[in-house]
Amino acid sequence: MNDKLTSKVINRLTLYHCILADYEENSCEYISSVKIANLLKLDNSQVRKDIKLLNNTGKCNVGYDVKALKKSIEKALGFEDVKDVFIIGAGNLGAAIAKYDRFQSYGLNVIALFDTDENKIGTAINNKKIYDIKDLPELSKKMNVDVAILTVPRRSAQKAADYLIKGNIKYIWNFTHYILDLPDTIKVWNENLIGNFLQFTLDKNKDKND
Amino acid sequence: MNDKLTSKVINRLTLYHCILADYEENSCEYISSVKIANLLKLDNSQVRKDIKLLNNTGKCNVGYDVKALKKSIEKALGFEDVKDVFIIGAGNLGAAIAKYDRFQSYGLNVIALFDTDENKIGTAINNKKIYDIKDLPELSKKMNVDVAILTVPRRSAQKAADYLIKGNIKYIWNFTHYILDLPDTIKVWNENLIGNFLQFTLDKNKDKND
Repeated sequence: MNDKLTSKVINRLTLYHCILADYEENSCEYISSVKIANLLKLDNSQVRKDIKLLNNTGKCNVGYDVKALKKSIEKALGFEDVKDVFIIGAGNLGAAIAKYDRFQSYGLNVIALFDTDENKIGTAINNKKIYDIKDLPELSKKMNVDVAILTVPRRSAQKAADYLIKGNIKYIWNFTHYILDLPDTIKVWNENLIGNFLQFTLDKNKDKND
Repeated sequence: MNDKLTSKVINRLTLYHCILADYEENSCEYISSVKIANLLKLDNSQVRKDIKLLNNTGKCNVGYDVKALKKSIEKALGFEDVKDVFIIGAGNLGAAIAKYDRFQSYGLNVIALFDTDENKIGTAINNKKIYDIKDLPELSKKMNVDVAILTVPRRSAQKAADYLIKGNIKYIWNFTHYILDLPDTIKVWNENLIGNFLQFTLDKNKDKND
């Protein structure tokens, strides 16, 4: 992992990746840094600097090779290391994520959901089975899963997290807006959708994508 | 708007807000910076520094007044300025957002959805009516809405954005993973869920919430 890939660089690289995926789908072979910069309203020099961090062999004067550049980004950002994940909570958000097949191309492979609702347990969303959350500790160990996406209602968040602790989950992507009480061995990413968006709508002078 | 509220500070303040909302619900009157720091695995000095930016009158030795601190954050982050928004795309993600009433406490008021699917048009999600996207330009002007959350499939993203342009929408929260071609008058926030999460799972030494 390249130390120069700060969070801002990673954020931009994933946006470049979106553009490259579109170019690849449309069978476009080359793309210039100017084109990427214009689409994202960034400086051309910024785009070239970011791409340079990937040690990509593309030449700026003829443009970058779309497939090769896309591959470099995937390698740098770890999209190639597929991580199996559980979704905890088969409600609106959990279902939306389970149906969102695009996560897979970023290395996240949803293999099952968990819920407490007896009407949901045993059914499936997008061919991913919904299990009783009580079975999580056993299944996470058996299936060797250590990443969980937590989408339960806020009031059930800690209770669900307690099952994740028992199941030796190591990474929690927390969408609940509840700050969990966890041992230091578990890393949690508190997803903060609204905070990100507010930074952008707040009347500030600098470009938030920059 | 305080210039010292960088994106990292804003991110932390919204996390403090989650904790304070929970304390308020549980009728806890005071909270210490140490408690906040421990829950978020941050340095106590960092929490105190952030809160100082809000010019909050709380005294650190008796703890902060929960209600007052929560209010200061809401004021600083603009949660009090309610923004009416449209959701474009009544699919899984659009529906999940429409059903997520918590956005309202952050100043985002979803007032309608738009779609192209005739089976959905005329129905409602969480009491928010689904309109034909063709009617957007007229309705956005009539209802004075200038913020749109774009959740359509990637292949329909630009087509939907063209309606937003016609409707004088000024801010787009783009969940489509498609980089839109837009005039400079429209600000777009390209939501990058997976990018944020990857930063956290990538094996890096520094704390990503910090």
